[in-house]
Amino acid sequence: MSPWKAAQPGDWLDDIDTPALVLDLDAFERNLQRMADSLKGSQVRLRPHAKCHKTPEIAIRQIALGAVGICCQKVSEAAVFVAAGIEDVLVTNQVVGATKLRHLMELARRARIGVLVDHPLQVQALKAAAQAHGVTLDVYVEVDVGARRCGVAPGAEAVQLALLVAASPQLRFAGLQCYHGPAQHLRTPGERALAIGAAVQQVRLTRDAIEACGIAVVRITGAGTGTFWHERDSGVYNELQAGSYAFMDQDYGNNQHGDGDVVFEHALFVRTTVMSRPTADRAVVDAGLKASSVDSGLPTVWQRPGLCYAKAADEHGVIMTPDAAALALGDTLMLVPGHCDPTVNLYDELVCVRGDRVEALWPIAARGALL
Amino acid sequence: MSPWKAAQPGDWLDDIDTPALVLDLDAFERNLQRMADSLKGSQVRLRPHAKCHKTPEIAIRQIALGAVGICCQKVSEAAVFVAAGIEDVLVTNQVVGATKLRHLMELARRARIGVLVDHPLQVQALKAAAQAHGVTLDVYVEVDVGARRCGVAPGAEAVQLALLVAASPQLRFAGLQCYHGPAQHLRTPGERALAIGAAVQQVRLTRDAIEACGIAVVRITGAGTGTFWHERDSGVYNELQAGSYAFMDQDYGNNQHGDGDVVFEHALFVRTTVMSRPTADRAVVDAGLKASSVDSGLPTVWQRPGLCYAKAADEHGVIMTPDAAALALGDTLMLVPGHCDPTVNLYDELVCVRGDRVEALWPIAARGALL
Repeated sequence: MSPWKAAQPGDWLDDIDTPALVLDLDAFERNLQRMADSLKGSQVRLRPHAKCHKTPEIAIRQIALGAVGICCQKVSEAAVFVAAGIEDVLVTNQVVGATKLRHLMELARRARIGVLVDHPLQVQALKAAAQAHGVTLDVYVEVDVGARRCGVAPGAEAVQLALLVAASPQLRFAGLQCYHGPAQHLRTPGERALAIGAAVQQVRLTRDAIEACGIAVVRITGAGTGTFWHERDSGVYNELQAGSYAFMDQDYGNNQHGDGDVVFEHALFVRTTVMSRPTADRAVVDAGLKASSVDSGLPTVWQRPGLCYAKAADEHGVIMTPDAAALALGDTLMLVPGHCDPTVNLYDELVCVRGDRVEALWPIAARGALL
Repeated sequence: MSPWKAAQPGDWLDDIDTPALVLDLDAFERNLQRMADSLKGSQVRLRPHAKCHKTPEIAIRQIALGAVGICCQKVSEAAVFVAAGIEDVLVTNQVVGATKLRHLMELARRARIGVLVDHPLQVQALKAAAQAHGVTLDVYVEVDVGARRCGVAPGAEAVQLALLVAASPQLRFAGLQCYHGPAQHLRTPGERALAIGAAVQQVRLTRDAIEACGIAVVRITGAGTGTFWHERDSGVYNELQAGSYAFMDQDYGNNQHGDGDVVFEHALFVRTTVMSRPTADRAVVDAGLKASSVDSGLPTVWQRPGLCYAKAADEHGVIMTPDAAALALGDTLMLVPGHCDPTVNLYDELVCVRGDRVEALWPIAARGALL
């Protein structure tokens, strides 16, 4: 960790040491409000994914605007949020291994905890752990609706697993996890609608098959920032897990949109300084791939259309500048990260700005909570 | 940060919570010794790059085996190592901005500090800051020997800048930084030899041109794990900055080698657990792209030739398993990261193992030191 911070509340924007992860509070607050507005009048609730921000200050604001709780992806991540006072956390993952199960059960003593299963052995282990710790948990059957990652097949396989959970008194069969990850970044609105339409069919037949066995499917949860309005309007999903909407990133920014899509603003930036200006067409900034994750593409330069972030090394970013006078040594730029989640995970705090002043530093308390 | 650690000294390898960054101490110690041996009898010294490990425990061991000090890439990274007692740090970067310069000068009060320049304005700012703080620094002119990143052109431009540094009493003109990054991962030994051969020619002519002005070029520093034996034998370079040799990664592992190349072992691994086994040909592990940086390629599965790490999501890794019986829920694997530097930067500690026991946890104290 850096022995000093990039800024302090009250500092001017121009005084922020770089590279720093900057949150534009006005844009961020509009994003949170836009999401809340998009769910008004529907019976669908929001459980935003906190893997994206890892920041209790943000979870608290999401819940204040109506979210029922949060999702986490890791047990240790959930522990950070429970310690910060969040009372309802769904770990949208399978939890395997005695150590992790012990920590999960300890959390279930202090908060409402949910977890996923996609194999009978996980149910058996959860049951034993819950019994040993004297706790109960919400258990969701994960159904593979197109992501080809985790999850049982829709239909019979899901029914079998739901029956197994429902037969375990220490476990509450809470419903189905039906997240279609790859659909989020299909570029055209038509492709995304089609993918979620196909997923909804699979979810409906699975739900109906489970209910035909006399087991209520109370909750069907899933969706992300790229498609959630389709899940909202599906008549099947009743909980949404979008997370990136709070920040947005370049990968989501590259999606095309159609009528009825709910679109958000870039609120998260990597502030960076030109530290080398070796040739007329090349500038080098101090934000490389340890400052902006490049897994989903390079960052882009915010509101400077002539400038192209062309190459990332560990601690260097190469900016191509067709206009030799466009950038000088010491100039600062704002970059839009390619992918917000792993970029946030590189920093210890968000430098929250309003206009040209730093308003707050928010600790990214679950940064590096991998376990 | 995770509220609990992945392991404690004395634990068995099999008890490590996952994902965890595991250092095989035997392989690591052999790598350090092999590097020291490769420099015996030469006049070339080692200043390993600490951007790769960010771990004072490792820098201390490198210095005990003969390294003269370390390189860092960031001022805040250097500050972590100086605080840990490292007395000689070269920041292999341009340092721009009043805040960074102030921190750099404070370090120069406590340790021997070097820094790079590639522009007259940087020299002017360093001079003023050094004067204001009453310190002196080693200043190296960075020469672009093929990386097309930072650095002045070889020859006249470098001479001008060296003269400017040498004329500044607060600055010690220490020599030339001549690192050829892209050459490190050229796949064939012939391509790498050719690239460094061309760099050496440029370095020699630049050195001779500066010395023709009556200025001694005491130190020529550069090189990485993929090429350092060429720089060692060049008759021009007299300091090497390799860092990855301590760990190795898959990207370096993909280099082909010829006679005389110095080759290292994989010592750094991401330990991971199978958490989902949804189909006969697919397993999902708990190490995704927040556990192993994918900027230089996906991780590979260590010593399990039938298994292919095929896809990384934030917290999931998809392993393709042609043999359905090859992996069961709860099995652990060791992954070789694609790129060691940004992978290390994701963790708070190295779980150091010897054989099947955890021997120590080493804090990655400069993790996230971006400023």
